[in-house]
Amino acid sequence: MRKLSVFIAMSLDGYIAQPNDDLSFLKLVEKEGEDYGYAEFTDTIDTLIIGRKTYDHVLNEIGSSHYDNGQRDVYVITRTQRPNSGRTIFYTGNLAELVQRLRSENGKGIYCDGGSEIINELLKNDLVDEFIISVIAILVGDGKRLFKDGRPEQQLELLNTKTFDTGLTQLHYRRKR
Amino acid sequence: MRKLSVFIAMSLDGYIAQPNDDLSFLKLVEKEGEDYGYAEFTDTIDTLIIGRKTYDHVLNEIGSSHYDNGQRDVYVITRTQRPNSGRTIFYTGNLAELVQRLRSENGKGIYCDGGSEIINELLKNDLVDEFIISVIAILVGDGKRLFKDGRPEQQLELLNTKTFDTGLTQLHYRRKR
Repeated sequence: MRKLSVFIAMSLDGYIAQPNDDLSFLKLVEKEGEDYGYAEFTDTIDTLIIGRKTYDHVLNEIGSSHYDNGQRDVYVITRTQRPNSGRTIFYTGNLAELVQRLRSENGKGIYCDGGSEIINELLKNDLVDEFIISVIAILVGDGKRLFKDGRPEQQLELLNTKTFDTGLTQLHYRRKR
Repeated sequence: MRKLSVFIAMSLDGYIAQPNDDLSFLKLVEKEGEDYGYAEFTDTIDTLIIGRKTYDHVLNEIGSSHYDNGQRDVYVITRTQRPNSGRTIFYTGNLAELVQRLRSENGKGIYCDGGSEIINELLKNDLVDEFIISVIAILVGDGKRLFKDGRPEQQLELLNTKTFDTGLTQLHYRRKR
């Protein structure tokens, strides 16, 4: 079955952004030629699920190239209908139903690229199979948490860890079933 | 200068206890003969700082042997005065002042054994020098967080990571000054 993965960076204290969606702490680990396995990971997926706010944020900050349009399906989870554009689909339906449908189809992996609302909705429905979490050596102190309160307990299996000279530690877990 | 260390376990989603102070998820990593470096760590310290609630909880669950009374000074941070007992001191004063005084004295390391209120008060005052955090391979979903919102940003240096066959990953950081 196609697996759904979360590949994301957080501070040691568990935040993916500082207040006002400030992502500047990610600059601490920027290093020429080091993508922390991102390209290798995205080679294993052909479908991306992303929240509307994160989608717009990335479009503004990086541009549409990030979504590699035409190479993979991009589902933008939103409450507001918009016309689809190429392989980018604006999806207003139920998130769990979308994931269950995608999983029943043939294909490569499914990647949830955030934001935290979408990730937590997936976690509540026990739909995340794999976590690749890059822990950055900073306590940011406040902001948007990767993991919100009020989810079910889920046991994980540690697959491996990698450390980098930028102080980043990448933790790779699989959901225990 | 004497350093102040936090040596603690948390779930991947950042909790040190599930609701109602349930610590049963720690049983996932219990293993005969494996203390995850605890004895080696406590050999480097001679002073313990602990919140009153955590102190009482440990007394009930493990007994006073955990505090190894007579071997080290134990400061129990409380709002209610109690008579001291051997090297156990019930401290009702200002926590930051206590740490600053201890640091100005000679001695081995200082260990904060929780709870999260005390740790976060130390973090707000930038008084933690070293973090040894054991990440347990579980999302517990809810409970008491190690890191609360509303602290200052603090950059860390990764010293090393260790993984164990129980799925525990131990992350060791030093506060960057």
